[in-house]
Amino acid sequence: MRAETTHFQCSIEAGIATLRLDRPERKNPLTFDSYAELRDWFRDLHYDDTVKAVVFASNGGNFSSGGDVHDIIGPLTRMSMKEMLAFTRMTGDLVKAMLNCGKPILTAADGVCVGAGAIIAMASDLRLATPEAKCAFLFTRVGLAGCDMGACAMLPRIIGQGRANELLYTGRAMTAEEGERWGFWNRLVPADRLEAEAVDWAKRIAAGPNFAHMMTKTMLQQEWSMSLGQAIEAEAQAQAICMQTEDFKRAYDAFVAKEKPVFEGN
Amino acid sequence: MRAETTHFQCSIEAGIATLRLDRPERKNPLTFDSYAELRDWFRDLHYDDTVKAVVFASNGGNFSSGGDVHDIIGPLTRMSMKEMLAFTRMTGDLVKAMLNCGKPILTAADGVCVGAGAIIAMASDLRLATPEAKCAFLFTRVGLAGCDMGACAMLPRIIGQGRANELLYTGRAMTAEEGERWGFWNRLVPADRLEAEAVDWAKRIAAGPNFAHMMTKTMLQQEWSMSLGQAIEAEAQAQAICMQTEDFKRAYDAFVAKEKPVFEGN
Amino acid sequence: MRAETTHFQCSIEAGIATLRLDRPERKNPLTFDSYAELRDWFRDLHYDDTVKAVVFASNGGNFSSGGDVHDIIGPLTRMSMKEMLAFTRMTGDLVKAMLNCGKPILTAADGVCVGAGAIIAMASDLRLATPEAKCAFLFTRVGLAGCDMGACAMLPRIIGQGRANELLYTGRAMTAEEGERWGFWNRLVPADRLEAEAVDWAKRIAAGPNFAHMMTKTMLQQEWSMSLGQAIEAEAQAQAICMQTEDFKRAYDAFVAKEKPVFEGN
Repeated sequence: MRAETTHFQCSIEAGIATLRLDRPERKNPLTFDSYAELRDWFRDLHYDDTVKAVVFASNGGNFSSGGDVHDIIGPLTRMSMKEMLAFTRMTGDLVKAMLNCGKPILTAADGVCVGAGAIIAMASDLRLATPEAKCAFLFTRVGLAGCDMGACAMLPRIIGQGRANELLYTGRAMTAEEGERWGFWNRLVPADRLEAEAVDWAKRIAAGPNFAHMMTKTMLQQEWSMSLGQAIEAEAQAQAICMQTEDFKRAYDAFVAKEKPVFEGN
Repeated sequence: MRAETTHFQCSIEAGIATLRLDRPERKNPLTFDSYAELRDWFRDLHYDDTVKAVVFASNGGNFSSGGDVHDIIGPLTRMSMKEMLAFTRMTGDLVKAMLNCGKPILTAADGVCVGAGAIIAMASDLRLATPEAKCAFLFTRVGLAGCDMGACAMLPRIIGQGRANELLYTGRAMTAEEGERWGFWNRLVPADRLEAEAVDWAKRIAAGPNFAHMMTKTMLQQEWSMSLGQAIEAEAQAQAICMQTEDFKRAYDAFVAKEKPVFEGN
Repeated sequence: MRAETTHFQCSIEAGIATLRLDRPERKNPLTFDSYAELRDWFRDLHYDDTVKAVVFASNGGNFSSGGDVHDIIGPLTRMSMKEMLAFTRMTGDLVKAMLNCGKPILTAADGVCVGAGAIIAMASDLRLATPEAKCAFLFTRVGLAGCDMGACAMLPRIIGQGRANELLYTGRAMTAEEGERWGFWNRLVPADRLEAEAVDWAKRIAAGPNFAHMMTKTMLQQEWSMSLGQAIEAEAQAQAICMQTEDFKRAYDAFVAKEKPVFEGN
């Protein structure tokens, strides 16, 4: 997996990729270029198993201020419908690429986490934040709807339909304490320990079983709109596939030997 | 939008309609007539943009005691299946009309909020209540099932499947404190400030962007049973439509001019 | 309904069946035999209305340690794909049988409630636990995916998508306090009162209306993946069916007579 990126920072170490947007002086807004490069990077990740978990980190005390008003919203107001749809599909494709990359993604959010930044957090599998993190779905403030990049589908399933409605209609900030209480943030961590804690979580997940984690991620998305009966049959098949892996045997052998299993991802 | 109503109170001021059931001496039960008139009123609202938000308020210290035992349940016990189905469809049509009216609805519940009254609260977009509000899904107490007017679909998505099961099987009252903690009520407000607070929320929402709010409301319902991939594409289209509005340009121009945008709903 | 069971304990009294796994010295693991017998017992229950509610109780201070490592996982590592799929389908069929049995199921969990034990709790309608209850979705620890017996479909709807992700990827234990706060447990009860409290809840539910409870249980599952409009029509039909029951008339007559209704389940 390439760590050479142009429009965001990327470092890869011991199977864990750490990404961060890189305009801290403006609270890390997204641009047309960073959207596209992130989409392509996560698409490539689908085919690369050397990276086993991703940390989407903050930079300079903030996660992301979302789509840049000058660089994105200005140009959008002058676009044709065809161009606008190409843009909204590109942003949606970033979410799809994150959902389909096959590796767990952890967001580590400090400070501002709003607009498309909040969506990136939401499209991650696990979310840590500092007590100072402010998360807002600001679309309504720029004259747009709350339905952006899958927000009306994902947010209600994370924090409940009633709370999601409030955030999407008003655009008001969810405090970190609310976010933890409502199930948006998995844990609050002081800023000076945030990234280390996220990397620690990522390491434990990267220890595997990675094929099984990929299947968990796949099925969490696949079963989104299935009937309960369909979901149970789909899981019977998916888990039977996992039972064919060597990692399943490794875990059993380790158990019998009273050792800790060492997974290899196959 | 007509404010002349027969079976419930309605006043419209500055784009905000305030509704309330009007038999406070009996805690505002619903009747065949008020169901039908509410259904028709919300259906008409779909085509009328002069009302931009709705407050469904309490009256005499209570929101609603639900379907009247004497006026509704008595006659129902003597009806044919065809007549019963016509009744249950009418009550369901009220929920559908609320969901499809295109304007955010705020419930402001004091005191008793039970049976069909609890469903009206649940079918609203935002919910405020007093610390004295008691919400119960009483259907089981009158020999009926918890599946009434969409309750088995909506309640689990608001408060979670486990808590919804308890309320629907037992019919027990959810306290206001539980309702806030579980995400049913967006905020608890003392009784003497409840309606003013609800109107204040409604005013902020009525300030727009109203076309975008309509689209948020539409998509929250549309995406209910979509796959995540379908939802992301549906939002790409819906948001591209919103980007064609003048309100989107107004917000950008106001940002550049360092002013607060004034939305016009187109 | 037969109380003579071989691979788990069953007693039936006053319309309430109390089940418990019966190897307390090993924290009540499931075996191939107990899976199959539980599946068949719940399937039979669909056709038997003498049992009106089920309590799935703990035994010796624990609920269940899930699939037995020696008796189940060992053999699984040596099975063909066809045999593995037959196994995962059998475990899924237990969940389906619980969902389709038509009677509310209450789990009363003390101590260890993990793996397939956690799934049985999750597939129940109501869940009580002691403050000492530890619930974990351990599949990842044995090299498998979190998608087991419907977990990726059910857990997010009970505790929210973000918290479900954490439990499914990490396999970490959910404390009883978290479980109550997140909506997994309906109530925490001290160990010495747990089963009595569960039986008390079961008695109140068994008092009826049982036909209506069956319909509530049916529709909670049926509407899982319906659109909101479909769900509202489905409930109009289901509730109209319930209005044809004598229990509906009994409730009305009791109300008029200022008495407590006595339901008969028809």
